Amino acid sequence: MLEKTTRMNYLYDFYQSLLTPKQRSYMSLYYLDDFSLGEIAEEYDVSRQAVYDNIKRTEAMLEEYEEKLLLFHKFQERSKLIAEIKVMLQEGSPSREALEEAVAELEKLD
Amino acid sequence: MLEKTTRMNYLYDFYQSLLTPKQRSYMSLYYLDDFSLGEIAEEYDVSRQAVYDNIKRTEAMLEEYEEKLLLFHKFQERSKLIAEIKVMLQEGSPSREALEEAVAELEKLD
Repeated sequence: MLEKTTRMNYLYDFYQSLLTPKQRSYMSLYYLDDFSLGEIAEEYDVSRQAVYDNIKRTEAMLEEYEEKLLLFHKFQERSKLIAEIKVMLQEGSPSREALEEAVAELEKLD
Repeated sequence: MLEKTTRMNYLYDFYQSLLTPKQRSYMSLYYLDDFSLGEIAEEYDVSRQAVYDNIKRTEAMLEEYEEKLLLFHKFQERSKLIAEIKVMLQEGSPSREALEEAVAELEKLD
């Protein structure tokens, strides 16, 4: 569950601008503020089932956007490469070749 | 017009997965293969006006996606930084500080 929450937090972060205001409210209360379905239902004066359905649909939409645009996937790939580059730079006398290779990989991700 | 074509080519590249198959066909014939509206209309046996309307709507959608997700904008920013890093690396003995700074900027873009 923690893994799913982390993934949804990231997907929400990347694609929230494509959601409706209501979807954004429910998702951010549920995933960022850790509200329960019942608490959100009370807050919005709707049924718990309605909140559940909305969140499930939104989760599916976020996964669909990720399938199409791969923003989270590319972010992860870029983060790995940037971390590698940072380690190389900290090592004092980094190999220029290794740095150039990592930068070329970074470029390919776009 | 050339500038607009270049921009549309990029936006199409970034967001084509969010378009319908028909939108993709018209856009790629018009922007990538340089077909005229009349030629596309003939190809699909529809009116020139229908093709025009579809392409205009698709262009507006692409701009809306860009407004929300900024993929093209971030790509341009990243490209600038990567180009800077490559120049530094080619200069022989790059300043570690300058490299670290550029990498940090790169990281912030995600």
